Amino acid sequence: MNEIKQIFKIQHPIVQAGMIWTSGWRLASAASNAGCLGLIGSASMYPDVLREHIQKCKLALAAAPGKATEKPFGVNVALIYPDIEKVMNIIVEEGVKVVFTSAGDPKKWTGWLKEKGITVVHVVGSVKFAQKSEDAGCDAVVAEGFEAGGHNGREETTTMVLIPMVRQKIRIPLIAAGGIATGRQMLAALALGANGVQIGSRFAASEESSLHANFKRKITELNEGDTQLSLKKLVPVRLVKNKFFMDVQAAEDKGASPEELKNILGRARAKLGMFEGDLEEGELEIGQVSALLKEIKPVKQIVEEIVREYESAKREIASL
Amino acid sequence: MNEIKQIFKIQHPIVQAGMIWTSGWRLASAASNAGCLGLIGSASMYPDVLREHIQKCKLALAAAPGKATEKPFGVNVALIYPDIEKVMNIIVEEGVKVVFTSAGDPKKWTGWLKEKGITVVHVVGSVKFAQKSEDAGCDAVVAEGFEAGGHNGREETTTMVLIPMVRQKIRIPLIAAGGIATGRQMLAALALGANGVQIGSRFAASEESSLHANFKRKITELNEGDTQLSLKKLVPVRLVKNKFFMDVQAAEDKGASPEELKNILGRARAKLGMFEGDLEEGELEIGQVSALLKEIKPVKQIVEEIVREYESAKREIASL
Repeated sequence: MNEIKQIFKIQHPIVQAGMIWTSGWRLASAASNAGCLGLIGSASMYPDVLREHIQKCKLALAAAPGKATEKPFGVNVALIYPDIEKVMNIIVEEGVKVVFTSAGDPKKWTGWLKEKGITVVHVVGSVKFAQKSEDAGCDAVVAEGFEAGGHNGREETTTMVLIPMVRQKIRIPLIAAGGIATGRQMLAALALGANGVQIGSRFAASEESSLHANFKRKITELNEGDTQLSLKKLVPVRLVKNKFFMDVQAAEDKGASPEELKNILGRARAKLGMFEGDLEEGELEIGQVSALLKEIKPVKQIVEEIVREYESAKREIASL
Repeated sequence: MNEIKQIFKIQHPIVQAGMIWTSGWRLASAASNAGCLGLIGSASMYPDVLREHIQKCKLALAAAPGKATEKPFGVNVALIYPDIEKVMNIIVEEGVKVVFTSAGDPKKWTGWLKEKGITVVHVVGSVKFAQKSEDAGCDAVVAEGFEAGGHNGREETTTMVLIPMVRQKIRIPLIAAGGIATGRQMLAALALGANGVQIGSRFAASEESSLHANFKRKITELNEGDTQLSLKKLVPVRLVKNKFFMDVQAAEDKGASPEELKNILGRARAKLGMFEGDLEEGELEIGQVSALLKEIKPVKQIVEEIVREYESAKREIASL
């Protein structure tokens, strides 16, 4: 039995990434109802908004037709969140059973969460942090390659190289992320040694994601080379090459300091682009694999297509 | 029957990359004798040196024990090479049957080579150039991801994303490159839709490669994050982060112009590092996957290990 399916009691070894401005209760409940692990992305939510999303997600899962057993879902928490204690308390109060942590030290909260019976997974971009996660007592690790959207590791290790390296060094289950949107890419990730996959961009391009319609349309128009890792002097982040990106790049090309870059970045750029739909001045986070996505579809159809392609590619590979 | 094995009449769908300062007759003949397609890397050779390597490669293949049929081999030609006509004439005169071209327009030489009965493969880093290669009449394409060593595409598309994108757009056989050193990575590349793989770094770390012993030892000591794409204002190239790299980065961080970077680069930096073994001042080109390579081995053993791991991973995947 696949370890990822076992840990989360899900039908497919697929986690829907808990992305800022993207993964609200609609997306998370749709992913969980489709047999995956749905995650609410809390990093762009005030604590009270998160509570509302958790409650609505539970209702949506309880109301789903044909529900035989309780469907699992989780919350992604960025450990650099300023009001982190509040967020963690809400998660416990609302009875959330799964937490994915990212952007911080896995030692900080893993023990506390596990004492409360919560399954904890940490998201990393390097072997070093994967080992730290295992040492901290995490139940699994998400290893995310350079091709992933949003914030990214400084090592720039791609999924093709990162997954075998992490696999060599840790014993806990491993979830691959970055560049995975199709059944073939999922099969490739398992061939590299992952036990499951976390999928971001493909679910961002779903009907149920909370991205602004402008950005969803933009995602379906992206081609190769249309995203790039930016702001490396601050925290590296993969962005669409829009006006804001070009402004940053022009400054970087002239040798801008971290302080100058912080000024250009300002505040709430991601909200402006991803949630409010300003495609020029906003920060637009999405993975390289967006170049393969040409249509906005319902989550159920997305999952069916991924699983169907995965099964057919598996048969093809077996016959080689 | 696998199309790559068919085109080149080889036992395994594996091409040994024709790398500068690395792939002489010793490496190419060893790879061909081990059932792969061996390639001589001509871009770091004077025309007369190339002729000598081709002749020695033919002798080494003819002298190999247990030789039943003629073993194939090829030459990699960078189309920006200044004495390109001389190189192409030598290839024809010496009866080479396979040419891999790179770094230039595939339309320039493909027709001329194919008239002479030569199989032509072009190396690309983007879908756009893969389509140009098919249009130019190439027999196959190598699509090389961001994680690959040496010169690299401006789109920074990783193997995980590039291979499915190229597969969608071309009908000719597709060879995946970048981040492939093991049997599991080979299986992942085929799962993504490639027909075969081109392997660079792993063969660079072989006994038969012509890299300086200092650099070979250095390769086995590299860890994650120890290579990075550099000189993006000139032609992007993946390098080991040594003193030369840090000098370039310091200049880039201060906003150095292309002219200033050209001055820092100077001439013959790759020869200095890769062939003469200056690990501080030389340019050291190697793939990200070098972080997985901990030992210098004979080519025969390398190929056996890759094929064994590939077969076992295939059985494992089939049973999922």
